[in-house]
Formats: sequence, structure tokens, C-alpha cells
Amino acid sequence: MNRGTVDLVIGGARSGKSRHAEQLAQESGLSVTYIATAEVRDAEMAARIAHHRASRPAHWRTLEAPMALAETLHGAANANTCVLVDCLTLWLSNLMLAEKEAEIDTLLDILPKLPGKIILVSNEVGWGIVPENALARRFRDEQGRLNQRIAALADNVTLVTAGLPLMLKHTPLPPTA
Amino acid sequence: MNRGTVDLVIGGARSGKSRHAEQLAQESGLSVTYIATAEVRDAEMAARIAHHRASRPAHWRTLEAPMALAETLHGAANANTCVLVDCLTLWLSNLMLAEKEAEIDTLLDILPKLPGKIILVSNEVGWGIVPENALARRFRDEQGRLNQRIAALADNVTLVTAGLPLMLKHTPLPPTA
Amino acid sequence: MNRGTVDLVIGGARSGKSRHAEQLAQESGLSVTYIATAEVRDAEMAARIAHHRASRPAHWRTLEAPMALAETLHGAANANTCVLVDCLTLWLSNLMLAEKEAEIDTLLDILPKLPGKIILVSNEVGWGIVPENALARRFRDEQGRLNQRIAALADNVTLVTAGLPLMLKHTPLPPTA
Repeated sequence: MNRGTVDLVIGGARSGKSRHAEQLAQESGLSVTYIATAEVRDAEMAARIAHHRASRPAHWRTLEAPMALAETLHGAANANTCVLVDCLTLWLSNLMLAEKEAEIDTLLDILPKLPGKIILVSNEVGWGIVPENALARRFRDEQGRLNQRIAALADNVTLVTAGLPLMLKHTPLPPTA
Repeated sequence: MNRGTVDLVIGGARSGKSRHAEQLAQESGLSVTYIATAEVRDAEMAARIAHHRASRPAHWRTLEAPMALAETLHGAANANTCVLVDCLTLWLSNLMLAEKEAEIDTLLDILPKLPGKIILVSNEVGWGIVPENALARRFRDEQGRLNQRIAALADNVTLVTAGLPLMLKHTPLPPTA
Repeated sequence: MNRGTVDLVIGGARSGKSRHAEQLAQESGLSVTYIATAEVRDAEMAARIAHHRASRPAHWRTLEAPMALAETLHGAANANTCVLVDCLTLWLSNLMLAEKEAEIDTLLDILPKLPGKIILVSNEVGWGIVPENALARRFRDEQGRLNQRIAALADNVTLVTAGLPLMLKHTPLPPTA
């Protein structure tokens, strides 16, 4: 079996990165599994998640993985499936709150071995002034490192600004026989 | 009459986006009308505005539109004019303070119908850590959505970093007969 | 003697810009002098600096220039050397604390005259919400202006995102005889 491909879609808040990733999933022609990393903590969050879900195609399968992302990806990925993870930023935030950062290495270990198409959405958070809050500083360091590590192993990396994609890394598909 | 073109110029604070937009206006060869959205609230603001005005060509016409941007654009746009709006970020901030967000839809409705050349300057504000302030969070959501909506209908979108333009979207001019 | 070249490498926090700049220095084939602008103020800073130094090739020469950067560059630059300055953001911060911003003009005056290869690393800090802190607002204005001024005179400018370089400005080498 061929190994799959990993796409990373990054951008600022409200940059249109999720919508771009959803379009990539749609265009893959594969059946789509959506992995949400948001944890439902209150009614506002529940409403926001329901709103997002309603905007996605009804036939997409949805899984939740606030922390056990590697395990959920391992179960969901196969050669005929596109798995869309939205987003690594909430996942990283969940891990840091729970002091389970070891999950990061587990994800990076498994990612290159997964079959099918994997699309990961993540935030750029380090383009402002140094935050006064120490936890915020640690988070932006961890997020920056995570984005670098995923980008290094990803086949394609797209930066989305005002809804417009900019290809930062692109691996051509191998020629078909 | 041909419809006009819409250019969006985005970038961070002190990225050189205003100066780039001014250069685009100059190079258009059209007569230029400058629409300022800043509201003069204090002496510091007045000094800053006077400083900016002094740096622009003296023959440019200047209008002020802290909120009624669609109406001002409608009055100013014509086939022989380049209208430069600087900037959508102050305008959005004025609208939110006055709870007049309905103006956004009015602008988006009129923009594609205007003749001549329209250049809009706007800030990217969503590339940092989530702000602790709730109003700041709402503002960056609204600004991000606005930039996406304008970019979707614009002919050209340029991201400016350290004074250097990067074309994110480009629509070639139709061939001349 | 031919004049040298100036490369500016910019990016957000933890974007991989330092590592990219180090790779450029390595690939230059020249002997490398590293100018650190960080001032050792406490044990945490000392540990961080030691960690960074250990990650660089042992044969690189290291100089420190928390403020007198133009003078240090003038002493270090020659036709057979690549001088890597990391970073302008800490240097600017040191200058502002000491009210020695006049050093900025001194640097901009000397930069285009230096022989050999100069690589400067700097942060993008203006892509977030306007900071509430007045000093932070002033810093991001100064940093944005500095990046624009350096970019205007640099031969090459690279924006690094998630470790991936994007060339914003490129000056081809003159043809060899």
C-alpha cells in the first residue's frame, strides 16, 4: 500500500483556513472523516460547534479527539479516506492544560505512516507583540514549534490570508504508470 | 460603461501598506480621491492625520468618511478616478463603536458596481495570541471576516510585509481591442 | 573591492527564522561571525543563550552587540566573512530601553557599505490586535519602520513561516566574467 499524503493548512484567526481545508477535503474525491478537537465546555462553545457542523456536508463522518489525536487518526485513516483535523491549536491548548504534551511526539511519529489523505488545520499565533501573560508566551512557543515540525514532514503547506491560499511547500504527485 | 476594478491592500501595522496603496493610486494615471476613515478625536490624532496628508500629493482630493463609506464611495467613484480608502480597520472600529455594522453589507453590495479604480487598505489583526479582552476578540473576528469578504470580490489582493508587496490574487486586465 | 550583500530574514516568534538564517550562513561557504544582540539579564536568559550557542557550528566566531551594532559590524565585516546578526528585535528593544534610538540611523547608514555577506534576523510583530500597553504600541511601530527601512536597502528579503522560506525580494547576483 502506498503511504498517504499530509497537508498542513495554516493561517491567522478568521483567515478562512478551515474553509480552505474543507474545500481541499471535498476536492480529494475521497470519503471524508472530520476530526474535531474542540472540547464542549459551555453553551457558547456548543452553539459555535453546531454552527460549524451545519456548514459541512451532511455525509461527512465526524469524530471528536480533544487529546487522543494520534489514536483517533490511526483508527480513521485508510487509503480511501481523507481525514480533516480542525484544529491543532485547540488540541495543543487541551494538551497543555492537561499536561499531556507527550501526545505531540506520538502524533509526529504516526503522521508520516498513515494511509490516505490527512489535512491538518493550525493557527499562526506568533506575529504580534510578546504577550505579557507567561502561559500565552509558552503557548505561542509550543504552537510555533509544532507548526514547524508538522510543516517539515508535510507534503504540502498552505498559508491562508483573507481566504486566499499561498503555497509554501508543494510536493508533486508521483507520475502515474 | 465598463465596471471598475477593486484592489485590496492588506498588511500588519507599519507594514508599508498605505504607502504601497498610494503608489498604486499614483501609477493608475487617474485623478485620485483619497477617503480618510479616521475620526479626529484628539490633538495627537489631528497631528498624525496632518502628517499623513502632507506626505500625499497636494493635488489629491481628500474626503472624510468615518462611517458612511458606501455613500461617500458612490459619490466619488467615476470612470476617470482612482478612489483610495485608508483604512477599513478604522472604519470597522468606528462602526462597531456606533453599533452600525449594517454599513458593512451596504459597502459589500455597492463595491462591485462602482466605476473606475477603487483601492482599499485594511489591517491583518488575527496572527497573534487570542486577546484577553472580549471586544478585541470580537473585533479581530469581524476584521478577519471583512477582509475575507472583500478579498473574495476584489480583482487584486496584495499582502504587504516590510514594505514589500506579495500578490495573493490577480485578475489580468481584459485584452484591448 | 566589491560591495557586499545584505539579507534580511523576517518572521514571527518560533517561525524558524533563526535556523533559516543559520542555514544561509552555512551555505555561503564563507567563514561565519555570529553577532548576538541578547543581553544576559538573568539565569533563564543565560541558559537560553547557551542552548542556542550549542546548536550552532563550534567554529563560528561569536560577538556580542546589545547596542553598538554598527560599530561591531564595521569591525567584523570583510569580503571573506558572512556576518549573521540575531536579532534586530532584541537590539531595538535594548536601544529603546536605553533611549539610544540614534543607533538605528547609524546602522542604516553603514549597512550598504559593508563588504562580504551580512544576514540580519528580525521579528514581525504588527499582525495582531493593537496592544493596550503604550510602550508595546511604540515598539511595534518602531519595529515595523525598521523592518521596512532594512528591507528597502537589502538585496534579499525572506519571510519564514513554519520553517518555510518565502522570498519577498530577490536581487540576482551579477554575471561572472
